Amino acid sequence: MNDSTSDTSNQWLDEIRWDSHGLLPVISQDVESGEILMFAWMNRDSLQLSVENGHAVYWSRSRKKLWHKGEESGHQQIIKSIRIDCDEDVLLIKVEQRGGIACHTGRQSCFYRELNGAEWKSIAPVIKDPAEIYKHS
Amino acid sequence: MNDSTSDTSNQWLDEIRWDSHGLLPVISQDVESGEILMFAWMNRDSLQLSVENGHAVYWSRSRKKLWHKGEESGHQQIIKSIRIDCDEDVLLIKVEQRGGIACHTGRQSCFYRELNGAEWKSIAPVIKDPAEIYKHS
Repeated sequence: MNDSTSDTSNQWLDEIRWDSHGLLPVISQDVESGEILMFAWMNRDSLQLSVENGHAVYWSRSRKKLWHKGEESGHQQIIKSIRIDCDEDVLLIKVEQRGGIACHTGRQSCFYRELNGAEWKSIAPVIKDPAEIYKHS
Repeated sequence: MNDSTSDTSNQWLDEIRWDSHGLLPVISQDVESGEILMFAWMNRDSLQLSVENGHAVYWSRSRKKLWHKGEESGHQQIIKSIRIDCDEDVLLIKVEQRGGIACHTGRQSCFYRELNGAEWKSIAPVIKDPAEIYKHS
């Protein structure tokens, strides 16, 4: 069993309603512009690491492992605040986006296509070629 | 089978990667302030209705039925734009929030608690008493 100190300090984690897979949807928002940068998932370990390290650590559902955002690209997300919704099952983190690029396509935001009539149209430029971003990986 | 006209016009819906339950996470953002208002889910029918009607219609996972946001409270979300993310499995809708209240607690946003040390602290006021909002329901 944990000692009473860690019980107390982790109570905020226990208050979260993790889904049946132990995961939580996380919205990340640029703290300066208010732009929504991306949407991802965290498990308990990744959220705890995010808070301890001060930058976003997600859970990759496809790779089934911790995903230290920016570990390859350098595009870390420095956490400025963490909010939880009324149902205690979704997080909103406000971040400083290193490099100004959150998306693996080299764009600021993953939400770069907008519905225009009956078509999804790209409305945001590629800031940096992904081949350049991931050349060392 | 559908005729070719509806096939073409619904292609944008077919491009979405619905989850195994036929659902899609949706982030709603205030078009004026950039504030994140809430997080909910849509299925294909609710998204199609949202686009046709011009206001947000979600899928209530708890009630297992269409949820015309604002049907009881009057706090409709008038859709100004719809974006999709790079993985085509999350939507971001920018809305005009009727009444300035998205949360059932009577607050502007559902994300009204912030992590402060090891505690979730409320940082946003109740604008209208929920008992007043839902008195006719």
